[in-house]
Amino acid sequence: MRVALGQFNAVVGDLAGNAQKMRNIYAEAVRSEVDLLVFPELAVCGYPPEDLLHKKHFLRDCSLALDKLAADCPDTTVIVGFAENYQGAGYNSAAVLQGGRTSKIYRKAQLPNYGVFDEQRYFQPGAEPVIINLKGVNIAITICFDIWNIEWLANFLKDAGQIQMILNISASPFHVGKIKKREETVSRCAKEFNCAVAYCNLVGGQDELVFDGRSMFADSTGNTKAKARAFDEDLIIADVTPTLEGTVQVEPTQPAALQPSDLLDEVYQALVLGTRDYAHKNGFKKTLLGLSGGVDSSVTAAIAVAALGPENVVGLTMPSKFNSPDTKADAKKLSKNLGIEFLTIPIEPILKQFDEALKEVRGWSSEGIAYENLQARIRGGILMSLSNQFGSLVLTTGNKSETAVGYATLYGDTAGGFAVIKDVPKTMVYKLAEHINKISRRQIIPADVLTRPPSAELKPDQKDSDSLPDYDLLDKILKGYVEEDKSAQQLVESGLPQDVVHNVIRMVDRNEYKRRLSPPGVRITPKAFGKDRRLPITNRYSEDR
Amino acid sequence: MRVALGQFNAVVGDLAGNAQKMRNIYAEAVRSEVDLLVFPELAVCGYPPEDLLHKKHFLRDCSLALDKLAADCPDTTVIVGFAENYQGAGYNSAAVLQGGRTSKIYRKAQLPNYGVFDEQRYFQPGAEPVIINLKGVNIAITICFDIWNIEWLANFLKDAGQIQMILNISASPFHVGKIKKREETVSRCAKEFNCAVAYCNLVGGQDELVFDGRSMFADSTGNTKAKARAFDEDLIIADVTPTLEGTVQVEPTQPAALQPSDLLDEVYQALVLGTRDYAHKNGFKKTLLGLSGGVDSSVTAAIAVAALGPENVVGLTMPSKFNSPDTKADAKKLSKNLGIEFLTIPIEPILKQFDEALKEVRGWSSEGIAYENLQARIRGGILMSLSNQFGSLVLTTGNKSETAVGYATLYGDTAGGFAVIKDVPKTMVYKLAEHINKISRRQIIPADVLTRPPSAELKPDQKDSDSLPDYDLLDKILKGYVEEDKSAQQLVESGLPQDVVHNVIRMVDRNEYKRRLSPPGVRITPKAFGKDRRLPITNRYSEDR
Repeated sequence: MRVALGQFNAVVGDLAGNAQKMRNIYAEAVRSEVDLLVFPELAVCGYPPEDLLHKKHFLRDCSLALDKLAADCPDTTVIVGFAENYQGAGYNSAAVLQGGRTSKIYRKAQLPNYGVFDEQRYFQPGAEPVIINLKGVNIAITICFDIWNIEWLANFLKDAGQIQMILNISASPFHVGKIKKREETVSRCAKEFNCAVAYCNLVGGQDELVFDGRSMFADSTGNTKAKARAFDEDLIIADVTPTLEGTVQVEPTQPAALQPSDLLDEVYQALVLGTRDYAHKNGFKKTLLGLSGGVDSSVTAAIAVAALGPENVVGLTMPSKFNSPDTKADAKKLSKNLGIEFLTIPIEPILKQFDEALKEVRGWSSEGIAYENLQARIRGGILMSLSNQFGSLVLTTGNKSETAVGYATLYGDTAGGFAVIKDVPKTMVYKLAEHINKISRRQIIPADVLTRPPSAELKPDQKDSDSLPDYDLLDKILKGYVEEDKSAQQLVESGLPQDVVHNVIRMVDRNEYKRRLSPPGVRITPKAFGKDRRLPITNRYSEDR
Repeated sequence: MRVALGQFNAVVGDLAGNAQKMRNIYAEAVRSEVDLLVFPELAVCGYPPEDLLHKKHFLRDCSLALDKLAADCPDTTVIVGFAENYQGAGYNSAAVLQGGRTSKIYRKAQLPNYGVFDEQRYFQPGAEPVIINLKGVNIAITICFDIWNIEWLANFLKDAGQIQMILNISASPFHVGKIKKREETVSRCAKEFNCAVAYCNLVGGQDELVFDGRSMFADSTGNTKAKARAFDEDLIIADVTPTLEGTVQVEPTQPAALQPSDLLDEVYQALVLGTRDYAHKNGFKKTLLGLSGGVDSSVTAAIAVAALGPENVVGLTMPSKFNSPDTKADAKKLSKNLGIEFLTIPIEPILKQFDEALKEVRGWSSEGIAYENLQARIRGGILMSLSNQFGSLVLTTGNKSETAVGYATLYGDTAGGFAVIKDVPKTMVYKLAEHINKISRRQIIPADVLTRPPSAELKPDQKDSDSLPDYDLLDKILKGYVEEDKSAQQLVESGLPQDVVHNVIRMVDRNEYKRRLSPPGVRITPKAFGKDRRLPITNRYSEDR
């Protein structure tokens, strides 16, 4: 039996566009004489459609799109994910398309409702396994989370007879290193049932999520026999053959796809795809960002160029009297290296006018936090003005470390449309800068940028280290507190300095509202600031008391 | 049996503060010789604690706070809601405190996971009823949603024997008119079980939610016999007496609390409480807002004054050449009427400098949308600068109608900390203005403000009606599309004009990202822009195709 996995980039809500992509893939699969073509979870409508699922007409339109797809794909068996209104309730379903119509429907039984997932908000759980037989091969259909609890699955399929292949259609979002867990899950599943596993994942960026593809086949010994491209569309095909000994062999029909070279490379590729898809899927061709000569804006610019092309990225430097000649020169150099348009708008005259006007209010001070933030807000105003004038997407440049502790100006440097590196800790930003230079085989990001102590340059001789701990230490604390939900006590017991731990936790807690009002950005860690971590703004919980 | 409902304003995460409030109420209840004192759902930690519940140390601290509360309240039976870690899983629980310790625990069985609720993200459902007997009265304990599905509840309690009172501890958020449904639910419950119902609700603002209190007692005929204050703390006490005829009588020990005069009055009170609690619970004493002389900022200012006192509200007018003498005069008059400080900062010189700077970029235009938005962003920058300098909370003034269609400048007039009327449709803003004048018994909001055609005053002779349909029509469409999830087709079939319906829907869909990046504000409708309505930003679904 020849099986194809159609890993494609669906757009949420684009029922016609997604169907067109699937028809094109179908045509290719038919040319390759496949017996079974598989598309990802909710491929008809994209994932996650969120509260679109509460619109009855949306579910109706999904069904209509599915019927049309079935009619257009009569010549082989197709499995495709769609959102279903069944007896008045919502289901996350997989349709079996055969002979021009839907012959069977499997309804997802395990509905994840943690982390970024809210499936119990939308769907009822299915209760019945669906087994199909193609060319004498018994195939059990599963959807994403169904295979992650192997004990549950074994029980669910216990009356299904001998299964030769488990099919899993997924929309499994990326975070760094997740592929390993996914491969282990697929492998465990193959071994448990002594069957092949065909795992078809979604690819593409959707708001904060990136789906990384890497669909795969495993044989009944649990070995991965083929893996699709990462962060790109792909169609992989394999022949699945049960043997007389009771094993199931898998033979791919194409050479292996190139995979990311390491964890840093996969983060880089996720950022590029997430940025490209956010821009393009929301109708933006051009982007615009402020270049400070620092590492955050340099890396953001390089990712934007990789995502959208140098002709679609404009860098803007907006110096004040506090910006050093060195950082200004580095911003310019970077633009030249990247081949992007570079504009300069000094903010000093505007800052002066603002200051004059604010001086009319008793108590206004031309130094201190308010005055520093004002500089960032003028820059945000300039970027947003150009965005409105030219229709370009403003990329913000804050990293996860400063986002966590609120080392940013709300409506200032957080003003924009997409926050490319908001989930990348500062220490990893440096590594990404080196990675970018490495894969470019030249010094795209100037060497100075990587060695100069970081500074917001909002007052004379300012350094990040005046207000924050060293980033190595800060990032350790943040990983424990934010990503692993550890307590201050646990962090201190693990050897981190008590006063710094408490300070950092206070900063993180106090800045929830800033994060809430900052743009979305690519999720690359197991817990980003976003749907992953839903803390109240009004929150007096403190471990200090 | 004498029962007291301790309706109090809990703060999320403030374990010590909430316990102190409950100890004070306990002392009062003991003085009134009550047999049973009831506190709301999750009273120990506030509602909703969201992802604080993922911190194991938070659950541990909740348990410690509960134990201490039990030890401090030995002299009568107390029922209190808390978040529980039981055998490694989270539960939304009610503890029965007797003799200085927890004697029984009921675990909520029905976990709402729709609208603003995400309880299945945090809690496992309980499976066992808990019945306690006090002075010969059998009491079934339930938590919030447990009583909203009466068929389920009847089955759940079917082996519990004769119940004389159902106790329900709730954290039921306000929306306009909800009290009617709540009373119906309580009444239906009383009649179904032929028992009294004691319903204790939370009160207070928590981010976007307002809990309106109005705890109540119903007798076994389903009549409401006592109702606590709305939007304020209260302790109501009643004697609950089973009769020989098998009915249960309820006699309150205090006179009836004054209730809101009508739906508009309850909206007004919700906005006042929501604003006060957001400010105070987040450590703000002072607020600041821009006054345009229009109805939105006038109503927002009046609510701020009612919430925080005139001495804590500063109004700022920031005129440009486009502002008429009339609106400037009205802003000043309003400030005088409200007795608030009034500042004027003209933006013209700053606008001129920005324009000069931006002219250096080829293609910049000193008229059009970008130039209009720039004015709003300068105003946002001024407000945020003063906020940073003086530590005051900036209130934004956008209403639900303009928030829906994106008739606002991102990082401009949406820049601030709290959006008081973001869930109030424009047509209701006018009614609120009249209501404010009525309850003040004088023309607080000048008459002109109520009759002048609305304008953003960002270019010469601008009117809202140049870009938007009449607000009567707009609000009808928005109610159908946003709050009721109706399709364009349904709206057109209900008699609304097709072209306007499609235009409005397009505007709503296209502006999701603006709403996402705007401050929180008080929820007063059944579906606000916030946790109620979770739509993807990246979304190509359209009914046009």
